[in-house]
Amino acid sequence: MTAFSFTLHATDGEARRGTLHTAHGPAETPAFMPVGTAGTVKAMTPEDVAATGAEIVLGNTYHLMLRPGADRVERLGGLHKFMNWPGPILTDSGGFQVMSLAELRKLTEEGVRFRSHIDGSYHTLTPERSMVIQRQLDADVTMAFDECTPFPAEHETARESMELSMRWAQRSKDAFTQRAGYGLFGIVQGGIYEDLRRRSVEALTDIGFDGYAVGGLAVGEGQELMFQVLDYTAPLLPEDRPRYLMGVGKPDDIVGAVERGIDMFDCVLPTRSGRTGQIFTARGTLNLKNARHADDPRPLEEDCPCPACAHYSRAYLHHLVRAGEMLGPMLATRHNVTFYQRLMQGLRDAIAAGRLEEHAAQFREDYARGDIPAL
Amino acid sequence: MTAFSFTLHATDGEARRGTLHTAHGPAETPAFMPVGTAGTVKAMTPEDVAATGAEIVLGNTYHLMLRPGADRVERLGGLHKFMNWPGPILTDSGGFQVMSLAELRKLTEEGVRFRSHIDGSYHTLTPERSMVIQRQLDADVTMAFDECTPFPAEHETARESMELSMRWAQRSKDAFTQRAGYGLFGIVQGGIYEDLRRRSVEALTDIGFDGYAVGGLAVGEGQELMFQVLDYTAPLLPEDRPRYLMGVGKPDDIVGAVERGIDMFDCVLPTRSGRTGQIFTARGTLNLKNARHADDPRPLEEDCPCPACAHYSRAYLHHLVRAGEMLGPMLATRHNVTFYQRLMQGLRDAIAAGRLEEHAAQFREDYARGDIPAL
Repeated sequence: MTAFSFTLHATDGEARRGTLHTAHGPAETPAFMPVGTAGTVKAMTPEDVAATGAEIVLGNTYHLMLRPGADRVERLGGLHKFMNWPGPILTDSGGFQVMSLAELRKLTEEGVRFRSHIDGSYHTLTPERSMVIQRQLDADVTMAFDECTPFPAEHETARESMELSMRWAQRSKDAFTQRAGYGLFGIVQGGIYEDLRRRSVEALTDIGFDGYAVGGLAVGEGQELMFQVLDYTAPLLPEDRPRYLMGVGKPDDIVGAVERGIDMFDCVLPTRSGRTGQIFTARGTLNLKNARHADDPRPLEEDCPCPACAHYSRAYLHHLVRAGEMLGPMLATRHNVTFYQRLMQGLRDAIAAGRLEEHAAQFREDYARGDIPAL
Repeated sequence: MTAFSFTLHATDGEARRGTLHTAHGPAETPAFMPVGTAGTVKAMTPEDVAATGAEIVLGNTYHLMLRPGADRVERLGGLHKFMNWPGPILTDSGGFQVMSLAELRKLTEEGVRFRSHIDGSYHTLTPERSMVIQRQLDADVTMAFDECTPFPAEHETARESMELSMRWAQRSKDAFTQRAGYGLFGIVQGGIYEDLRRRSVEALTDIGFDGYAVGGLAVGEGQELMFQVLDYTAPLLPEDRPRYLMGVGKPDDIVGAVERGIDMFDCVLPTRSGRTGQIFTARGTLNLKNARHADDPRPLEEDCPCPACAHYSRAYLHHLVRAGEMLGPMLATRHNVTFYQRLMQGLRDAIAAGRLEEHAAQFREDYARGDIPAL
């Protein structure tokens, strides 16, 4: 069994080109992880997901513990077997979604007690419980249990929240079962305060993790503030460990974060947007519902190898979305996830070739220019 | 270009094993046609449909004329190109769905005027208009425009309705554009009255069609009455033309109809049931929502080659359906359509081998026995 490790192949400025090695195989970085909340990347089969180029997917501890239950997933052979995804899986700790989805939640030093948004049943998540659940799910990458500091937060609030997360990080590390090929990531908190981010990184590196996530961003602070936090936080992180920016983001967020030294991303944007007919292209986004696509024989993107672009016109995809046909979301999701994976491939190639700056500038220019009108 | 034709390879009792040849390739019969109402077999890609073994699909004139519009489909290269289905397509005439779905419909000798159930716009369907639309869609098999006689109907009502349909059948034939590889089917009406069915067959064979459908069944009369009508109607039909039982049906309906000499079927049952988690197996139906599947590691059917059975447990499929995940309907639909295609393959093989009677008896015994309980 391969040890859990990260190989850094090349750097270009702050940007890094690497490989994450896990019990279920490698993932090239910078990597975008499609979100498989409830044990499925919505509207896609695992074969569809793999065909986009994705190598690692994310599962949500909060959703899976409530339904179908982590005990059940374990009995059925773990999440890889359950959902038929043989590659690496990262699970979040449940902390973020308890705070955003659960009802009647109560936060204490011990953890969080809450009511399920599905059936109203009571549950408790603690660092120890989160480690057990992620072990049951058989996650290749386990995330430490933390509190996602809300935005905006005063310095005092952000400090207390960060310090709680650091105590939970130690408890997560203590409760994590070491297994070859499986890794545990710590999560840097501290809001938008440089001193807190620095103290959080120090606390986490003192504990020692297999990777480091930057948490508490993409929660409403905006791209400029997010990039500022990355500007001073990323350089503090150990070079030999992967860096994961949680819940990000839009294509231009990802490009900017890669330029600032981030290796891993996850976001529901390509899948959720796909289900509503919002399409990502190298020339910005387009809305399939818009009547201007009704007679357009062109594919979404001329050079895209995804099934939506290879076989269908914008007119057909527009029709599917208008008619409420399930194939619309299915194809739109495949396209969007393919777009994200091609974005990552382009970034990886550019870093390896030492031309990330030009590549990113060209991306931003094209992306801002907007869709090519039909003749 | 192949001529539109039907080759009869073998018979076994009344049952027939044949091949339908069309402009877009052959279809082995007895054949089940998945329903692609609005230019998509719901929740499946065309590749998924082909992987089930299906060779011919059905499109609905009524739906397609209203959205996206037959002119538009024609401009975009016809229905095959629009929906990326390179094989044969049969379109219905629109008559049945005008009566079941449209609003404010008004039936005259000329045709039917109605309001769209989608946007309230006014439309008229006549035999001539239906032929133009099906030509624009580029259907390999065009259906004559008819009135589906309601059930129950008095003899007088059924006679008048049938006679109207026969006049419309002549007008359909007159308006149909002959093209190599493209065929026109007449539709036998007459309700449950043997004399009317006989007169309808005589009228249609006098006009002359490339195939003959039995209409006005599966409208509430029940299997016993349906089989009675087939018992006296099918033998009246020309041996050298395909016979299509419209809108049928449950697996045991199909087996009984094949035994009575029917070659082609269509029904929304496998696709619609798939979307609600109702599963067809050789041991009857099962409901994926049922809690008894929650921990069941077995596939839906041990010997089924479909992706749902090859890669997933009942427990996982149950989870998807309970969680409202789109992958649930996607996989369930693939299984159900695969089940129907395997049913047809079994019937074709049994007819060719001259052992349909035993095969059908075994099917009915297994199907009635019900699901094998988990250990």
